[in-house]
Amino acid sequence: MGDTDPTDPQAACFEAGIKFGSLYHQFAGTPVSPASAPSLAAAMEEAIENQPHCASVVVDIREEALTEAVADGPAAYTELTGRFFEVELQIAYEDTTVVAEMAMADGYPLMEVTAVRDRE
Amino acid sequence: MGDTDPTDPQAACFEAGIKFGSLYHQFAGTPVSPASAPSLAAAMEEAIENQPHCASVVVDIREEALTEAVADGPAAYTELTGRFFEVELQIAYEDTTVVAEMAMADGYPLMEVTAVRDRE
Amino acid sequence: MGDTDPTDPQAACFEAGIKFGSLYHQFAGTPVSPASAPSLAAAMEEAIENQPHCASVVVDIREEALTEAVADGPAAYTELTGRFFEVELQIAYEDTTVVAEMAMADGYPLMEVTAVRDRE
Amino acid sequence: MGDTDPTDPQAACFEAGIKFGSLYHQFAGTPVSPASAPSLAAAMEEAIENQPHCASVVVDIREEALTEAVADGPAAYTELTGRFFEVELQIAYEDTTVVAEMAMADGYPLMEVTAVRDRE
Repeated sequence: MGDTDPTDPQAACFEAGIKFGSLYHQFAGTPVSPASAPSLAAAMEEAIENQPHCASVVVDIREEALTEAVADGPAAYTELTGRFFEVELQIAYEDTTVVAEMAMADGYPLMEVTAVRDRE
Repeated sequence: MGDTDPTDPQAACFEAGIKFGSLYHQFAGTPVSPASAPSLAAAMEEAIENQPHCASVVVDIREEALTEAVADGPAAYTELTGRFFEVELQIAYEDTTVVAEMAMADGYPLMEVTAVRDRE
Repeated sequence: MGDTDPTDPQAACFEAGIKFGSLYHQFAGTPVSPASAPSLAAAMEEAIENQPHCASVVVDIREEALTEAVADGPAAYTELTGRFFEVELQIAYEDTTVVAEMAMADGYPLMEVTAVRDRE
Repeated sequence: MGDTDPTDPQAACFEAGIKFGSLYHQFAGTPVSPASAPSLAAAMEEAIENQPHCASVVVDIREEALTEAVADGPAAYTELTGRFFEVELQIAYEDTTVVAEMAMADGYPLMEVTAVRDRE
């Protein structure tokens, strides 16, 4: 029916989406190797935690996938894509906490909200 | 109290956020001039419309702000930031439509959901 | 032996490298489909042609590779990488013209200078 | 007159340019604050050092400029641009070493080759 303004939980989910899109498209394509992956993961976490309402970001490098890709590839490094890392982040917006995750699903880096929680 | 899975409208808002974060951080920093702005805006729209559940993206270049920045600056072009464009996008997720916008507010490129609509 | 300042042809080659690195890392990761590829290619060309000393940029989408990747993949689009486009650009710096190209070689997007030309 | 293939010093300068363009356009737009700048600088250095022929990359955050920009701005962070960091990098290509730098000059992040050195 009619349009409504977003509720707090809807706005919190919107904020979670912004963080995922930002993180992915800022850093996709970065040259990465098993040796340089930890500094990249740390920078990704701290960069996105700067954004509003972002309580925490955890980037988990998939070391085995990265090591295999480099071993199979033409160079000693590759480009960052969603195959090489997983993310869990938490948004705190007014009284709502949102937990969202990115992980590979059928070859696609699927981002989804896993929990919406009222902090009351 | 307890955790809940996201509702369809919450998931739709999450998808809207992903599109904004993607659009902004993929294209921020691109060399842009008044002459090249239209092709960049077209590419931004078509690129993000590829993403899931994205019904439409409209990128509106702020030509006056761009022309002034180039005139005041050291080169015949500048780098794309949120000062130089506004966005309106629509997400269609199950029975929910979400409209979201990005525009400058007090010097910050504010992204927000402007309407959540049930398509029933 | 001792250090020297760059000659004009060396500076022209440096400028060519800047354009390739810029083009690749600005646009890698962009969502792209066969339908949206032409607008992306046009934006890439016009964006980089803004940069100093850049006489021309031609981006050639490898349509067959892109169509196959989308057909084989989990979504109706993919992310831009060097597998999906070739580039030829020309730098004009003082009296030197440099031609440089990017194309796939053994699975790696190889960028190289193909001609250094004195315009006298 | 006629075209020639690049010499080793010309190819070394081309490689230096690739690194600068990559570094700038991969990371421009990243959310950054005085607190998160060190992890970002470390990631930038290690990411670009992965690229071929890249002997070293040193990213120097301009802390004062960054602190001022955040203090004057609408948020507790800003977006990375060339105003907030300087770079010095070294390329080793066959028997040539190239040193190149990026620093602000008249409001523009100027990249230039500062030394070409024969290692013989």
